[in-house]
Formats: sequence, structure tokens, C-alpha cells
Amino acid sequence: MAGRHFLFVPGPTNVPDRVQRAMLVAMEDHRSSKFPELTLPLFEDLKKVFKSTDGQVFIFPSSGTGAWEASLSNTLSPGDKVLASRFGQFSHLWIDLAQRLGLDVQVLEEEWGTGVKPDKIEAILRDDKSHQIKAVLAVHNETATGVTSDIGAVRKAIDAAGHPALLYVDGVSSIGSLDFRADEWRVDLAVAGSQKGLMLPAGLGIVCVSPRALAASKTAGLKRVYFDFADQIKANATGYFPYTPPLPLLYGLRESLRILFEEKLEHVYERHHVLAGGVRAAVKAWGLHPCAKESKWDSDTVTAIVVPQGINGADVIDAAYRRYNLSLGAGLSQVAGKVFRIGHLGDLNDLMVLGAIAGAEMAMRDVGIDITLGSGVGAAQTHFRSTVLAKEKKPTEQERFAEVHPEGVLND
Amino acid sequence: MAGRHFLFVPGPTNVPDRVQRAMLVAMEDHRSSKFPELTLPLFEDLKKVFKSTDGQVFIFPSSGTGAWEASLSNTLSPGDKVLASRFGQFSHLWIDLAQRLGLDVQVLEEEWGTGVKPDKIEAILRDDKSHQIKAVLAVHNETATGVTSDIGAVRKAIDAAGHPALLYVDGVSSIGSLDFRADEWRVDLAVAGSQKGLMLPAGLGIVCVSPRALAASKTAGLKRVYFDFADQIKANATGYFPYTPPLPLLYGLRESLRILFEEKLEHVYERHHVLAGGVRAAVKAWGLHPCAKESKWDSDTVTAIVVPQGINGADVIDAAYRRYNLSLGAGLSQVAGKVFRIGHLGDLNDLMVLGAIAGAEMAMRDVGIDITLGSGVGAAQTHFRSTVLAKEKKPTEQERFAEVHPEGVLND
Amino acid sequence: MAGRHFLFVPGPTNVPDRVQRAMLVAMEDHRSSKFPELTLPLFEDLKKVFKSTDGQVFIFPSSGTGAWEASLSNTLSPGDKVLASRFGQFSHLWIDLAQRLGLDVQVLEEEWGTGVKPDKIEAILRDDKSHQIKAVLAVHNETATGVTSDIGAVRKAIDAAGHPALLYVDGVSSIGSLDFRADEWRVDLAVAGSQKGLMLPAGLGIVCVSPRALAASKTAGLKRVYFDFADQIKANATGYFPYTPPLPLLYGLRESLRILFEEKLEHVYERHHVLAGGVRAAVKAWGLHPCAKESKWDSDTVTAIVVPQGINGADVIDAAYRRYNLSLGAGLSQVAGKVFRIGHLGDLNDLMVLGAIAGAEMAMRDVGIDITLGSGVGAAQTHFRSTVLAKEKKPTEQERFAEVHPEGVLND
Amino acid sequence: MAGRHFLFVPGPTNVPDRVQRAMLVAMEDHRSSKFPELTLPLFEDLKKVFKSTDGQVFIFPSSGTGAWEASLSNTLSPGDKVLASRFGQFSHLWIDLAQRLGLDVQVLEEEWGTGVKPDKIEAILRDDKSHQIKAVLAVHNETATGVTSDIGAVRKAIDAAGHPALLYVDGVSSIGSLDFRADEWRVDLAVAGSQKGLMLPAGLGIVCVSPRALAASKTAGLKRVYFDFADQIKANATGYFPYTPPLPLLYGLRESLRILFEEKLEHVYERHHVLAGGVRAAVKAWGLHPCAKESKWDSDTVTAIVVPQGINGADVIDAAYRRYNLSLGAGLSQVAGKVFRIGHLGDLNDLMVLGAIAGAEMAMRDVGIDITLGSGVGAAQTHFRSTVLAKEKKPTEQERFAEVHPEGVLND
Repeated sequence: MAGRHFLFVPGPTNVPDRVQRAMLVAMEDHRSSKFPELTLPLFEDLKKVFKSTDGQVFIFPSSGTGAWEASLSNTLSPGDKVLASRFGQFSHLWIDLAQRLGLDVQVLEEEWGTGVKPDKIEAILRDDKSHQIKAVLAVHNETATGVTSDIGAVRKAIDAAGHPALLYVDGVSSIGSLDFRADEWRVDLAVAGSQKGLMLPAGLGIVCVSPRALAASKTAGLKRVYFDFADQIKANATGYFPYTPPLPLLYGLRESLRILFEEKLEHVYERHHVLAGGVRAAVKAWGLHPCAKESKWDSDTVTAIVVPQGINGADVIDAAYRRYNLSLGAGLSQVAGKVFRIGHLGDLNDLMVLGAIAGAEMAMRDVGIDITLGSGVGAAQTHFRSTVLAKEKKPTEQERFAEVHPEGVLND
Repeated sequence: MAGRHFLFVPGPTNVPDRVQRAMLVAMEDHRSSKFPELTLPLFEDLKKVFKSTDGQVFIFPSSGTGAWEASLSNTLSPGDKVLASRFGQFSHLWIDLAQRLGLDVQVLEEEWGTGVKPDKIEAILRDDKSHQIKAVLAVHNETATGVTSDIGAVRKAIDAAGHPALLYVDGVSSIGSLDFRADEWRVDLAVAGSQKGLMLPAGLGIVCVSPRALAASKTAGLKRVYFDFADQIKANATGYFPYTPPLPLLYGLRESLRILFEEKLEHVYERHHVLAGGVRAAVKAWGLHPCAKESKWDSDTVTAIVVPQGINGADVIDAAYRRYNLSLGAGLSQVAGKVFRIGHLGDLNDLMVLGAIAGAEMAMRDVGIDITLGSGVGAAQTHFRSTVLAKEKKPTEQERFAEVHPEGVLND
Repeated sequence: MAGRHFLFVPGPTNVPDRVQRAMLVAMEDHRSSKFPELTLPLFEDLKKVFKSTDGQVFIFPSSGTGAWEASLSNTLSPGDKVLASRFGQFSHLWIDLAQRLGLDVQVLEEEWGTGVKPDKIEAILRDDKSHQIKAVLAVHNETATGVTSDIGAVRKAIDAAGHPALLYVDGVSSIGSLDFRADEWRVDLAVAGSQKGLMLPAGLGIVCVSPRALAASKTAGLKRVYFDFADQIKANATGYFPYTPPLPLLYGLRESLRILFEEKLEHVYERHHVLAGGVRAAVKAWGLHPCAKESKWDSDTVTAIVVPQGINGADVIDAAYRRYNLSLGAGLSQVAGKVFRIGHLGDLNDLMVLGAIAGAEMAMRDVGIDITLGSGVGAAQTHFRSTVLAKEKKPTEQERFAEVHPEGVLND
Repeated sequence: MAGRHFLFVPGPTNVPDRVQRAMLVAMEDHRSSKFPELTLPLFEDLKKVFKSTDGQVFIFPSSGTGAWEASLSNTLSPGDKVLASRFGQFSHLWIDLAQRLGLDVQVLEEEWGTGVKPDKIEAILRDDKSHQIKAVLAVHNETATGVTSDIGAVRKAIDAAGHPALLYVDGVSSIGSLDFRADEWRVDLAVAGSQKGLMLPAGLGIVCVSPRALAASKTAGLKRVYFDFADQIKANATGYFPYTPPLPLLYGLRESLRILFEEKLEHVYERHHVLAGGVRAAVKAWGLHPCAKESKWDSDTVTAIVVPQGINGADVIDAAYRRYNLSLGAGLSQVAGKVFRIGHLGDLNDLMVLGAIAGAEMAMRDVGIDITLGSGVGAAQTHFRSTVLAKEKKPTEQERFAEVHPEGVLND
């Protein structure tokens, strides 16, 4: 098929040309004296993305699932009780992984389309007088339903309960795209992957670990070798790895971090918010509804769109893929066939999203959904134009700050 | 700016990933015994793009301008009279080049927005009893106004006049995208460049030369060395070049030709026709008009859109570029400020064009053109859906032929 | 530093240009209907490299260490007894990993510079009447000392003892470079990595598993989730993965497999044998000795060279790296400082190896080793010329076979 | 054939990985407002390579032959008399080009293996009282014989004769590799190509033109359009080109210039001198002779090696290419079969050259030349080691200068 494919699954995301170039490297000795010049800054720069000052970052050659496993297996012991909310396929899979590792997971079932309920967590933790619950697991952004949970509120719930449980957050489809504040929220284990907001191919599982979680890793009884923090800590200290690292991804990571910092993280989040706003405006114009039950759950990285009764969401995806060179995300598990998803994270801009909306419109019409061609595009255009023009008129808070404090730094 | 740029100037065009990969080559000895394995098939395959069986193809390390010069300087003598129609910036520049080379150009001035008028050419040639006119120059696709001329009709006009003039055709923005028939139209010198329908970076000027024109080159008196056919003929015969060729472009050319042949040339032309139809549907939905005066002049590779009185087309282009990551083509010379251009040739598909239309809509609104956001997109979507669905229903003539003649070949 | 770096560590190895190009891909939906066209053939083609017909291949996003872990954790239970020989840093690390996973490792300590002793293994297995030993672990090629063990003989030893232990083989620095015969040797778990003979960046851990080992995985009690065979089996069956795979590496793998099959595996092994022979001829010409105690232990993928008393091997490596743009491998653990290593595996040819030998000579002279410049190069040249000329004279067994059995296939 | 090819023809040269990466760019609008950010610095930076302060640089999409033509056709008139020395294939071809353009070339035939004789030029110019000679053409580095001429001495000869002729210098195989001083030598037209010292693929013909030559271009009568300085001057002034430029090469040029300036030009020249010294030491060790008749003619970018009587140099090249993956340069015209050439310019280092020398040794032995394998390598190693060690001991003049004048700049 001619032309560029429109990739609108919620990961992997488009790799920017700059990152593609950066990954085009000859192999080299990963034990050379020069190698740490590449690696040591990566750990520091990743901390900026997590907004962590005292955490330690680990980079595993793995997918995000490996980082999930690393976070749990390094800090918990067989039979440890953990509290986790389930409201989508990815929160489900993390729970499943925890159970298979031998943890005792207390599952809070939440309606799909909603997210973590801090008040419920607070109540359970308050009741756990003997502190049997060692960990609270929260998925920041549930990719299956397009739901973002309020991690700051989860932290407040744990604090309000006066409970010592560690806070584990799956930020695979949020970190690098949505505001994430490891320090402020005192996230003990934050999990990311290379193939989403970091705009790289899959292959790096990344974890940012708080000092308290690092301390816990000293006595944690779950077995781990490949994913062992201790081996990494020892080797990373001087810029090396316990085994051969995937060089192109490390060079790519360096470049993707540069890109994020050049755009500035706050602008990256704002851009994702605007693009998501355009998609949501389109959904509204079509007369359809997102899977997220209330706007407070709306994700800025992925929107799951509920198809009308009698329509199979998979048919929309198939028409989009075969006819219009557009990849949309499928409904999974409970919402299989009931939704299709538009991923809107990573290296995207207005016109790319408008092209995808236009493609989704055609595919929806092809399978018999009664929407007006161009209506969603028009709504999104209106949204994009208003933000573009607004941005030109007034400087951001940060820019205003910079004007009067040219020497200072508001954030990152 | 985040995301992929939308390049909708009428050249250079997007280089497909396959071609990008193919150009990523280590340098090699261009006089090695293996080198002709790369080069000899290129000449043959290019002939298929020109639809020439008995022509000879030349590949110069140059832009298309160099190929213009090569075509004239190899086949004409100082003071030779040539007949050329002028109806846009590129037909103008070719005439200018001919004059500066020392040719006596009889210029047929045509209204911009129209093209070559075969009847006028026929009349002039009939009057030229002594055959002073050595050449007729025709621009197949005038990139500045989005006008395609009927070269087959020019050939008929020359034949009807019984005149021996050679036929020179500028196919820079047509060949590889629009149907071009060197043999059928008996084009003596057909000129192409790498950066348009061939989907490569600029850097190769390509000429396809008829036996009659080759014969003329033996006595042509204009000076040429770098662009001399004779040196090329000698070296090309065994797969070499008289000087160091640009290797990545040759490897890229091999791949772009493979892509064209895999899609099949007739499908490539059909795709361009559909994409152009979408753009024209959008223009109509906006209530605007193309620069082409009648639909018979409509180009399938570029559309020049006339902006309303009081609006400067350059402002549309500027807004599109700065705000929406979209490159549109400027109005040149006579139509400067009066039009903006959408190039729709090369490695493009429906969603890319819809993104560009959406971007043009936003930019037009930004500068005060009263159009409805999404209206052009909707019109183009309707056009694209109808052709996609129609294509799925009925096989092409070629496919029907292939079904009953599995051993045969209808064309290319 | 100008020019190309000479990478002569025993992994990662040079990535051929063809593979570099192949890895330059846009991201795509790893759940699309087309994706299995890429992946399904990979599993089949990898089996050819392992020379396995009935095994099942797993591809993990991990380093080779992850593949070690996958092989053990999927097929053994906590406290299971395994028998392993230790004679170098990598056999040591595998034993360490096994112990940390909770296995009871009976370690056979062998002199560094030698390898697996099948007779000892046979004796121990004969004594293990109650079949407490569940597994025999053997490192095919010990990268730290440049020692290759005879895995066929290990198989014979197990068979002679009539013992049901599974045979695990670390082929990380052998598979794809040295002859490896999973079927013939009835290897139950063969472990490979992408960054050695497969000529890719690190990032894929690969395991080929026999039906008997697959059966064992059904009851194995060690915990695993990320590395679980069962999840892979389910997803791989239709060409998918349980989590996002590293796309560029999969595309690169497809190309590296093509390259191996085009050269033909037997020729790849022969090439490695010749290159290694050149290095060994150089070592002899220098009056030095390899770490391998007898020629039967000589590895065709890496040579560890013992430096004279009073010289630190690390200084040779440092001089080579800083002055001559050459990466050599360091001595590790027991042989730290006592050897330096030349990796000669992957995408290499005569002149590359000669350049490395020349660089090693200069570095050795720089640190005071008394060798004659050019002496090792000359010895290696003599070796290379003799094999080149011999090869031109007589066809290989395979070629002779092909001549008389044009329809048949001798191997791969 | 496995492994990296050893490219030792005197152009095209190896493209460094950094430049390969830089050329991997999406196409863009070459008339955008941002485009001059790329182009304007290129013109300035190229002047530094020519060591010109008041010259003007032109970049043509062409090979070096195009730049030859541009230099002559822009500044001379039909029938103008020019003085040129012929002592190799490339000085011959330039003369041939001049003659075909319609110039009256007074040819000074020099023995091949020698170069320009300034005293002869001075004598002829002194005799040319009426200043009929408009130009002196000198090839700085004759690639066919490995001879470098003293352009400073040619300038002095012209000055001594008090003659106003313009000085044209072919620096295609010298500029960027050998010291070139446009200002100091008052070179009026210096001609370079992208595929030699600039480490790019072929495709850019570059000319640096003195103010005096620019003035001459205003009245020069030779026809030129594609290569016309005037069109370039007009467009280049604001960072544009009169026709579509080859984008990847421009981005590559930016990177190659950065590489040259990072290494520093004086160090680049020194590195070429050292590498050439190694090759010459090898030739001596073999008991052979360079084509250059005296050491004063020795080129630091290419060495032509005379093969013994009865041996065909083409056989050496063939053996090297087929058996050892090594490209050597052929003998051309007068020296066809009598020499083979080793190009040693561009992105090269010691070990690459040692690999090539080793390959040449094997190929020479294969065709029956009686040399000792390793002898040339050993001689070159000795040469390289001595310079490496010397360099480590004493700082260069420039470095010494920088130490005491940290604010100052000695050159480039």
C-alpha cells in the first residue's frame, strides 16, 4: 500500500526520524572506557521524566511486562499481600502476573471505564491494622479503556490511612506523555516501557525505584536473577550493565530524551491534552461515547470509543487497516468488539490525528455506523485551531516565569 | 515541532521507507566488475516508466534542469528555431534556458491555467514550409498552475502538419505519476527528475531519447561535455558512467522502480487520479476554484487553488507551515499570492491527503477565508470511499485480463 | 577518531549493512493481521540454525542471560539437582544464576583453559542411581577462555550412563558460528543470543527446546512469568507475542537469517574455522600461547591469548583501544590481566582479522611484549591464502553432492 | 562475501557512520523559510576547507566533472587560450573537456609520474607578452599516478612572469585531505567533489571562486545555464538554489564539515600524511616503486604502485577484489596494467590501511609477485607506531599555540 501507514494503536508509537537516525549505530564494546559517557546520563535524564530526585532508575532489556515483574520480584516475598484495582485488561494482566509470582492479591474490582477509587483503598488500608498489605498496585493509565486514574489521590489515601504499604504504579502508557510525579506522589516503583511516550521501539523495561523500595529489595524473598536490582546497582554505578545491553535502544533513548527536553515535558503533556481533546471532540460530533464513564477518567493518551449496538468494533478496525492504511486498537476481553481505540500518544501532531479521525470516519461508515463524514474532523479542527491561536496569544505560566526570572527554573 | 511533517509541495516528494533503506549503502568501486549488475537493469526499467521500447535512457547526476539542458544541447545547434508554449513558471523557465543556450525560441503565449494548444502548433508547423522549426517543446504537466496538457494531441498536430520537428516533453512532474507514453506519442526527448514520481531525493536528471533524436545528436552543434550523450552511450553500454555516479540514488532508484512495478504503473496513475479527485472535491466544497481554467486541464499531480480577492496565498502557506506542520506550494510569478498549491504526487495515500486538506482548511480559516472546517475533508472522504468500494467490487481491466490470460501481460 | 572501529570483542559483533538496513523500520501494530507473515517464518528458520526439527524456538526480548533463566526456570523445580562444569567466567555465571534460582548445583570444577569432561559426567551420572540429577548444564563455547567443548560427547556420556537428565547447552557464543546440532546431540535446551553469530544488536534471548523439555515445563515448579514458555506457546502459535516485541530486531533477525542461509551454514562454520586458524597462526608466530590448554579445546569464535609474565593484558587492551581504534576482550576473573581476547565471530573476513592482528601487534609492542611487527599478520596471511586457493581448487563435499544430486539437499 | 568491504580506490571514499545518519532525512520544502538555516552555513564552512576568505563557493548537483565545466564555462570565452599540463588521466580529461568547450588549450606534456613544472609555466607566461593566455590549469593531485603538484609554486611562477592569467586548480582528490590554500596561493577557481576528502557520496560538484574570477564571469562568453554562477549567486544569497538541491547530500555535507572541523583540518592533513607514509613504507619493503618518480611528487591521498615486468596490474586488482574483498584502483591509459593504486584518503585509520596492505600483499603473491607476506604490513606498522608515540609525546604547534594563547586561533 502506498504512502505512510497511520499508526494509532496505543503503542508501539511512531519513532521520530531523529531517533531512527540515532539508533543507526555500529556495535561497540559495552565494556569500553568510553561506554559510560553514553549510559550514565541516561539514568539521570530518565529521573527527570519520572520527576524523581532521589529514586534510582533501572533499564532492563525487556518489554514493559518485564519491568512489571522486576518491580514486584525485587521488593516482595512469596505470599505477601498486595492490593490492586482491576478495571481493564492491563490492570488485569498485572494482577495475574503478581498472582503467578506467588503474591496474595486482594483485587478491587471496578467497573471498566472507571479507574482506581482512592476512598476504597483508604478504607481497606485503615482496616489493615496489622499492615498485612505490603503494596498498593495502581495502573496510572489503563490502555484498554482509555482511563487515567489519579495517582496523587491514591498517595493521599495511603497517607490518610497511615499505612506503610509501598505504592507501585504502572505508567507504561502514561510516562513521557502524561504528567507523572514520582517524588510528589511518593511513588515507590514506577514502571515504564520504551515503546510509548519515549517514542522508541519496544525492548527497554524501565523502573524508577524510591529509596524505601530499594531498602525493601534487600530483604525481599521472591527469586529474581535477570531482573535483579542488586546486579544492576553494582554495574550501573560505573555506567555498565550486568549483561550485554541493546545498544541501538540506548542511543535512541538518549535522543528521545533530548527531544522531550527540547519540547519541554510540560509542553509534551499539553500537546497530548490538546490532541486528546480533538479526538474527544470528534467522538462527541459523531454522537458516540468514550468507554471512560465520566470525563474525569478521560485519558490523554488513548480513547476507547464505544460502537453502537449491533456493530462489531473489530470490523471498524479491519476496514481501517485494509482500506485506509490505519491501525486502530482493538477492544480487549470484557470490551472486545464493543469498542475500538485510537492511541494518541508519542510523536504526533494535529494533522496526523486529523488524518486518523478521517480514516476512522470512513471505516465507521463502511461498517454501517451512521456518522457524517468530516464531522469529527471539523470538531477536532475547531478544537486544534482554538488552542493554537490561544497559545500564540498568551505565554504559558512557565514562559511568563522565565520572562521575569530569566535565571530561574520553574520545573524540568 | 512534534510529529511528521506533511510535505505537500509538488516535489520533492516523500521518499518511501523502502527507498530510504535502499539508499543506505556503503560506497563501492563504481568501476568494479559487479557494478553493472546494479546499473544495466536501471536503464531497461526506466524505459518501462517512459513506456519506450526503442528509446535510450540517460541518467545524469543533476536536477531536472540539467536534464532539460541535456535534451536541448545534445540535439540542436546554435540559432536553431524551436517552438514552445508558455503558460506557467516552468514552461517559462525551459524557454529561458533554451534562449540562453542560443536557440531561437518562437514562444506561444497561452493563458496561465490553460496548456498547450495543439491546433495552434499544427497551424504554425503547417506554415513552416521550409522546416525551420527543429523542435516543439511541450510541458506535460505545468507544476505552477496544476495544468496537464495532452501530449498525444501535440503528436497528432505535428503529424497532421507533416512536419519533421522533434518533440521534446518536460515530464518532470508527470513521469511516474501520470500516464506517459513515449512510444505511442513518439516523444523524442522526454525529461524526468528523480524527486517527483520516482520518489527519490533530487540529484538525478533523466532523459529518454528516441532513435531519431539520437541520430540528431551526432550533428548537433551546441556545446556540451558534462551532459554529452556520446560519453554516456559509450560508458553506459557496459554499465558504467563517464564520471563517479551518486551511488545512493542509483540504489534508491532500483528500489523505487521495484515499488512502481509492484503497485503496477496503471494503478499508480489511478491512485494519483483518485487522490487528485479528492483534492478537487474539497476545493469545490470550499466554494473555491482551481487555477486550471477547465476540468480538461486538471492535473492529477498538483492543484493550484485560487484564493479569494483580498487574501494573499502566501499567508495561507505561512500559517500552514508555522502552525500545522504542513508545506504547501507557493504561487509563482504571474500567480504569486493569487494561489496556493497542493502537490499530490508520489508516495501518498488517502489519509495523508485528508490530513493535508484538513491543514489547508485550518490555515485558510486562520487568514480569513470563509470556509467550513471539515467540509473539504468530508467531500474528499466521500470521493475516496466511493472509489475504494468500487475498486473492491469490480476487478480492473488488467485483472480481468490476467484471470483469463494468466500467462499474458496486458501492459508493463 | 577517524575511520571505522575494529570491534574484536567476542560479542556484540558487527551488524552487517543489510541487517542495519532491515532494522530501519517504522513501528507497526504487532497485533495486525499481517504481523504473522514476519514472525512465523522466524521460528522455523531459527530451528535450522539450531539444526532442530522437532524442537520449539522461543524468542524473548532479553539478553542471553534472560534465555539462560528461561531455560532453567521453565523446566526445573526449586531444589532440583543439576550438574554443571565450571571452567571460565560464563560457565561460572550460569551456575551462579542456577543457584540463585534455587537449584542445587553440583559443580564440576575444571581447569580454566579446558572444558567439559564427558567421562567425569558419565561417572557421576552412573552413580546417580536414583536420578536425583535432573539436568546437565554444558557451555558449548566458553567465551572467557576461548574453549569449545564437545557437546556430542556429553550426549554420549549421558546416554552411556543411561541417565534421564535433560541436557542444557549454552550456545550463546557458538550458535550461528560453530556447528551446532540440537537434534543429533539431543540437546534439550539450547540457549542463544542475538548479538553473536546472529550478527544483531543484543536484545533477543533465544531458546530451542526439545519435546521432552517442553513436557517437563508442564510440571516445573520454578516461578516464571515474563519468561514463561506457556504464554509464548499460546501467542506464538498464531504469530504473536504475549507482550510488545522489539520490532527492529525481528526484522533484523529475518535478514541475518537470510544472510546465513545464503552463505550456507556449513560455509559460515568453515569461514569461522579459517579466521580462527589465522589468529592461532599469528599467536604461534608471536611465540605466545592461547589460554586453551590443548588444540582440541580451541574455539573458532574467540581466542584468549596469554601475555608474558610481568605484562598486564589490560594494558594491551587499553593501548589497542586508545591508539589503534581496536576493541579487544579483557581477561575476566581468574584470568584477569593474564590474557587478552580476540573475538573472531560474526560478520568478519580475512582483511578485517588481519587489521585486528596488526593492531594487536602494535599494542603488544607498545606495552613491551617482544614480538616482531608483521609476524603474526604474515602467518595469518599464509593461512588465509592457502585456504582461499584450496577452496578455489576443490569443491566442498556439499557442492560435489549438489552436482550429482541437483535435486537433493545434503544439509540445511 | 562476509564482512566489510575494504574500499581503497581513490574515491568514492568511505562515508562515516555520522554522515550516513545525517543523510537519512525526510524530504522537505527547499523553499521553506527554515531551509536557509541549513544552507547558508554550508557556504561559509566550505570556504574554511578551501582556506578562502574572500572567495565565493558554489555547490552544484553534479560530479566533479560538472565542477570542472562550471569553472571554465563561467569565466572564459570561446577560443580563449589556456595553458595546461598533462601528466595523467585526470589532467588529460580536464584538458579534453576544455577543448570540447571550445577553448584553445596549450598543452604542456609532462612525464607521467611527475607533475606541474612551475618553471616551464613561468617561461611560457613570460613569452606571452600580449597576455593571450587567459588561464593556467593545474591539477593539484593527479589521481591516476599518485602525484601532487606544488600549487604555491605555480602561483609564484605566474607572479614572477607578471602575467594576469587566472589560476584554475583541480583539487578533486586533494581538497579536504591535503593542505589547500586558496587565499595564500590566490587560486581563482578551485574545484572539488563530494566523494573524496569530504567523505560523501558523489553528487556535489563544488567550486570556490575568487573575486577576480567572479568579475571575469560577467563577460565570459561560453554558454552555460545549468552551471551558471549568476543564477546561483542570486538564489544562494538568501540560502536557496535555482533548482531542487539533493537534500541528503546537503545534510551529509553539514555533518562531514563538522567532522573535519572537530578533527581539525591540520590534523586531517597530518593523518593523511601518516597513512600515506605507511603505504610508502610498505611499497619500499616490498622492493617495489611508486609511479611517482621522486618523493617530492608523492601524493598523500593515493599511491600508484608499479608492478614488475611481466605482471599485469589488473590481475592484482582482480585477485584483491574477488578473493579478499578489497577494491584497489586500476592503472589508466598510459599506465594501464603497469600499476595498481591504493587510495588512502577520507575516513581511514591505521588498521584499515594495514588491512588493505595485507590484502594487496596476498593479491600480489597470488599473481606471482615475489614479496614476503607481512613485510609491507610490518614496515607500515613501524611507521604508524612511531608517529602515534611521537604524537603522544609532543603537542603539535597548534596545541602549543593554544596553550599560551587560549583565546587565539592559529588556523582554521
